[in-house]
Amino acid sequence: MKTRILFIVILVFISLTSSNSQVLYRKTIAIPDISGYLTLKADFHIHTVFSNGLVWPTVRVQEAWMEGLDVIAFTDHLEYHTFDKDVVYDDNRATEVAKSYAQMYGMVLIKGTEITRSQPLGHFNAIFTTDNNKLRVKDSILSITTAGQQGAFITWNHPHENNKGWNEVQEMLFKQGLMNGIEVANHNTYFPEAQQWCMDKNLTMMGTSDVHNPITFDYNFQKGEHRTLTLVFAKEKTPESIQEALNNHRTAAYWKDKIIGKEEFLSEIFKNSVSFLNTTITINKKNKIKAVLYIKNSSDIPYKIKFTEKPADITIPTEILLEPGKTSAIDFDGKSPGQKLYSLTFEVTNLLVGPNKPYVSTVNLTVVNQ
Amino acid sequence: MKTRILFIVILVFISLTSSNSQVLYRKTIAIPDISGYLTLKADFHIHTVFSNGLVWPTVRVQEAWMEGLDVIAFTDHLEYHTFDKDVVYDDNRATEVAKSYAQMYGMVLIKGTEITRSQPLGHFNAIFTTDNNKLRVKDSILSITTAGQQGAFITWNHPHENNKGWNEVQEMLFKQGLMNGIEVANHNTYFPEAQQWCMDKNLTMMGTSDVHNPITFDYNFQKGEHRTLTLVFAKEKTPESIQEALNNHRTAAYWKDKIIGKEEFLSEIFKNSVSFLNTTITINKKNKIKAVLYIKNSSDIPYKIKFTEKPADITIPTEILLEPGKTSAIDFDGKSPGQKLYSLTFEVTNLLVGPNKPYVSTVNLTVVNQ
Amino acid sequence: MKTRILFIVILVFISLTSSNSQVLYRKTIAIPDISGYLTLKADFHIHTVFSNGLVWPTVRVQEAWMEGLDVIAFTDHLEYHTFDKDVVYDDNRATEVAKSYAQMYGMVLIKGTEITRSQPLGHFNAIFTTDNNKLRVKDSILSITTAGQQGAFITWNHPHENNKGWNEVQEMLFKQGLMNGIEVANHNTYFPEAQQWCMDKNLTMMGTSDVHNPITFDYNFQKGEHRTLTLVFAKEKTPESIQEALNNHRTAAYWKDKIIGKEEFLSEIFKNSVSFLNTTITINKKNKIKAVLYIKNSSDIPYKIKFTEKPADITIPTEILLEPGKTSAIDFDGKSPGQKLYSLTFEVTNLLVGPNKPYVSTVNLTVVNQ
Amino acid sequence: MKTRILFIVILVFISLTSSNSQVLYRKTIAIPDISGYLTLKADFHIHTVFSNGLVWPTVRVQEAWMEGLDVIAFTDHLEYHTFDKDVVYDDNRATEVAKSYAQMYGMVLIKGTEITRSQPLGHFNAIFTTDNNKLRVKDSILSITTAGQQGAFITWNHPHENNKGWNEVQEMLFKQGLMNGIEVANHNTYFPEAQQWCMDKNLTMMGTSDVHNPITFDYNFQKGEHRTLTLVFAKEKTPESIQEALNNHRTAAYWKDKIIGKEEFLSEIFKNSVSFLNTTITINKKNKIKAVLYIKNSSDIPYKIKFTEKPADITIPTEILLEPGKTSAIDFDGKSPGQKLYSLTFEVTNLLVGPNKPYVSTVNLTVVNQ
Repeated sequence: MKTRILFIVILVFISLTSSNSQVLYRKTIAIPDISGYLTLKADFHIHTVFSNGLVWPTVRVQEAWMEGLDVIAFTDHLEYHTFDKDVVYDDNRATEVAKSYAQMYGMVLIKGTEITRSQPLGHFNAIFTTDNNKLRVKDSILSITTAGQQGAFITWNHPHENNKGWNEVQEMLFKQGLMNGIEVANHNTYFPEAQQWCMDKNLTMMGTSDVHNPITFDYNFQKGEHRTLTLVFAKEKTPESIQEALNNHRTAAYWKDKIIGKEEFLSEIFKNSVSFLNTTITINKKNKIKAVLYIKNSSDIPYKIKFTEKPADITIPTEILLEPGKTSAIDFDGKSPGQKLYSLTFEVTNLLVGPNKPYVSTVNLTVVNQ
Repeated sequence: MKTRILFIVILVFISLTSSNSQVLYRKTIAIPDISGYLTLKADFHIHTVFSNGLVWPTVRVQEAWMEGLDVIAFTDHLEYHTFDKDVVYDDNRATEVAKSYAQMYGMVLIKGTEITRSQPLGHFNAIFTTDNNKLRVKDSILSITTAGQQGAFITWNHPHENNKGWNEVQEMLFKQGLMNGIEVANHNTYFPEAQQWCMDKNLTMMGTSDVHNPITFDYNFQKGEHRTLTLVFAKEKTPESIQEALNNHRTAAYWKDKIIGKEEFLSEIFKNSVSFLNTTITINKKNKIKAVLYIKNSSDIPYKIKFTEKPADITIPTEILLEPGKTSAIDFDGKSPGQKLYSLTFEVTNLLVGPNKPYVSTVNLTVVNQ
Repeated sequence: MKTRILFIVILVFISLTSSNSQVLYRKTIAIPDISGYLTLKADFHIHTVFSNGLVWPTVRVQEAWMEGLDVIAFTDHLEYHTFDKDVVYDDNRATEVAKSYAQMYGMVLIKGTEITRSQPLGHFNAIFTTDNNKLRVKDSILSITTAGQQGAFITWNHPHENNKGWNEVQEMLFKQGLMNGIEVANHNTYFPEAQQWCMDKNLTMMGTSDVHNPITFDYNFQKGEHRTLTLVFAKEKTPESIQEALNNHRTAAYWKDKIIGKEEFLSEIFKNSVSFLNTTITINKKNKIKAVLYIKNSSDIPYKIKFTEKPADITIPTEILLEPGKTSAIDFDGKSPGQKLYSLTFEVTNLLVGPNKPYVSTVNLTVVNQ
Repeated sequence: MKTRILFIVILVFISLTSSNSQVLYRKTIAIPDISGYLTLKADFHIHTVFSNGLVWPTVRVQEAWMEGLDVIAFTDHLEYHTFDKDVVYDDNRATEVAKSYAQMYGMVLIKGTEITRSQPLGHFNAIFTTDNNKLRVKDSILSITTAGQQGAFITWNHPHENNKGWNEVQEMLFKQGLMNGIEVANHNTYFPEAQQWCMDKNLTMMGTSDVHNPITFDYNFQKGEHRTLTLVFAKEKTPESIQEALNNHRTAAYWKDKIIGKEEFLSEIFKNSVSFLNTTITINKKNKIKAVLYIKNSSDIPYKIKFTEKPADITIPTEILLEPGKTSAIDFDGKSPGQKLYSLTFEVTNLLVGPNKPYVSTVNLTVVNQ
């Protein structure tokens, strides 16, 4: 009897000491809010050991927290339960298991699943589902319809893998309101066609990691990489607010160094990130330009500027990288221009407002004599 | 005659093309302002080819701009003109040569010089001088007195190299108002004794690089190092305002990962850098703690927290690094405490409010049941 | 009809292949071999989801491969099966599951387990076990004895957590040959006392990660950190050869920037890592020294040199970091010495040949006139 | 008298303390030697304060040493002496000033100069000159001819800035043996046309930094960048041997992540850098491939492999980065092939054996059943 009590006490002690009380660090992804909305960082396509992912669900919460994300959804495959010899089958468990962690770390965690079928249908994600196990039926369309009945937001995943493109099945689902968004970027790949489809049919653009490995296997954070994600322009950081934003197509995909989305969102992100600190060109007494243009980039996005129109008599580097969090000083050279006001037109080549189409803007410069 | 004109035209052309129009990047040193004052980043001890430094003066402006500094002073040695076979001698030239660059890059550039004499006097810097050439006299005291007459701010450099410590000469200069500050940190070395002298005699604490090499030889920016510098708490970013701040001892030295200065300044820097995002400890139904403490460090300073007093029944890591620009999540472990309010006392071991004496603060935690 | 069936089969197949055919990268840990033995990099203390670890066993193989390790052992707790609601219980599964991966990646994978009991016994690892399930018995000593009967190599883990130190139980196990090694370093902690015990009783020194998280949570590889590991001086990279090396105490622990082990091994590692490229001091015509000492460090170990004895008339930095993979050029200063041969004695402060006791060596310098 | 003696003593003391005895670190540029020749790393186009460069000549020696270079040439402009108000004019001084440093650091330092004239001539470098001052004549052709008479090796610099391309003046100089090489890469720019000219006319290909700034302004070493340089395949590391190699066109240009040169050199560099560790494809019992291909890159060159021909039934990533100093593990997927031997053809897209033309190679794989 006595030994039993002792044993319990001992176990408590052990769990204290062996549980490595640890420190984790969260970085900030500095992408500015836009007017009226927060810019939330979300990944809506994530796998765990409850399908063919390789980590325990709580790890996904901590990974995302450390990377600066606000929102994640678990989307384990209904059809693949690779570890079924060792892991008990239940398509709602991943979310349940990680729930308290999400709460503790202040992450929004959304229940979801991946409906993984063959072409021409392809793979679909349903998020904001209520019971994934009910979607595990043979008939693909029935599975998606059931998700719709649960109030899910449904997306077509990595459509580039579908060698038939947008076909009858997609058209049918779209018309029935069972396709609400498309992945324009999935892990390493960007699909310009998908961006066009979203623009043509007013669908929500998604960017996702589709991660199966521990996230550090797939992204080299050391080199400044980030996982492919969706920027959600939401009124609040709540599940409801996020779903409202998705339903109203207020998203952009953040993929490698590029943001893919509507011009109305991307232009505002750019203007809230970048300031031209000095727009005066001084001309010295020898009639030559002696000036430096300063551009401050307060965001984490490495904007790439390409001047497309500029006066012939000034020399500046054609392409400029605005390093994240830094001020760029750009040497001006040349001789005095005739005019008192210059306008420089530039492309931001990593803001894609259409399929491979850069955002275009201008800056005005004033000329003064020394 | 004709060829001569042609030649000139050609030269202008060449200078256009060969002048590599370049882009330089300025990082930000995120150290918060304190109430009523800007926190300017300054280096008041810099050498150029006009004594025994190894770069042209304009390089010093660009280096400092890129590193995020606001203010620099050139302090070439009056006594060493190492390259006098090749470089023409004039102790005011360095500042003159770099003046237009400082203007172009928005840096405050202050004229100064180093009066480099033997022990027991040692080395002194005079900044805000008007004519350095007039200080080049054999009599050390006369040199310093002349600097004083020019309205200079005078500091005792790297006093640790003076094996006699604070002696009669220092006492005499101090009494005559000819020693206004002391380097408590010079390049790689911190001098706790100097900090004590500054506290005892109300002198201004300086931190300087004393750089001779290209700055990247001396600091490994790749590893996140920064040059040793002086934080100046000034009303404005102007020479006058900076001199006023120096005269009124409103400085601190930023050396390696440490800030050395008065508690009144350091406590405010800490409070404006760090926020405790979550100070609630949740107790679960099994009477065990299930909580994470979040601490956000918005600055670039890697604060090192060491808990010195904490309740016996909670387990947290004793020493925590608050990584710059990140939020730290610290695991709490333990069993339910009896009380409803906890107080954790901690040292910030890299804020030195006295010689090797850390700043001490506390955080209050509230206990709630799940 | 037949083609249709084939088509479906293919589709399923494609969905398998589209799952990210990936590229992983292995770094090299450059630590030289010693005479007669390979220097293998091993981690003998690793957890997976089959106890309270957070990743699938195959992840452990890939993590270790990427970090440059040669050998790993899985040591899941017999007593903790934290995820038993979802994961089916079997203490031999982790190794079985990862076996084919180990083969594919050329890693030696050793079956093991952690016997996690209360003080004064503490935690023990048994590696090279044949059936872990047979060790899952209530009686701690029986569990360890059974491991011994299976031919296991048995170590005492993180003994610093045992507030009773080396006591009767340890003495008893040691005498019965059931304690073959001790962890002198476990994750973040080094135990000098354990090093002394190993030296006194001729036990094998172990360094282990004791990893539960994805490894990147615990080590900042970005900053050049490595997991705590054991260097095994083995004849071949085979399980048998590794066990023979462990049995004969041919190991050292690699913890943070330090190696902990016997002088006979550490001195050889140092000598095979570091070469003094230039040991000549030139004296110029003014009788002053004009020389640079070159030290090449071919290894990944950041050796820290501290000169303890040197002639009074030469000036060199007292402490020098020999950066991994680089040649250090150290400025010599001073005046001409009287002698023709100098001897510099130095400590290598990160090679610990006894508890906190550095390895000591010397270098001879020859003096020549210009 | 007494004061004079004191003063001298003092100066000696000061020179000891102020001379920051420092440690500099040399990295290795791991590019393998080729059969019969060392692969030396050289930069033959460098400026100092003795024209319009911004650092003292000795800095150039230390910069190059730290970056892992073996050979440098100073090529200050004869025509620009930007700092002539402060620096005394002599076109041989830069080399003289830095000579003892070159010796101390074991660098080969070559005297040279840039003859900077207008189009259609453009800029030429003459290295291995004996007296640069004699080349400072108005007549451009006379200047070049004099260099030739001094035994100089003469190159045409950054020909892309010459909007006339290869014209009569170039043809004339070439025919007279007064143009021995061309810069195919200068700092940020690669000139494919120049590579073609070198191939057509058997001229030596050069890559140079053309540095004016402190080198760290122009290259981000933090991101792993290196200065643009020339690989010289020389018998020994001596000036004579280097000149012999240049005269016999045994060079390649190392620019960004690319090497530009003759296939005979580049193929050997690749083969000595890269080994295929495992070329066996295992087929499991279900007739599916289960294999990982290992490629070890021992060099610092980030080779980019692009598979252009491969069997339809295996899936591998099309483009693979072989990270420097690492082993890449590439997942194979697919079904059993009919044949027992596979051949994979690949381009190495960063080895340019012609203008923008990649080096092509193959690897043979053997198929075995499990």
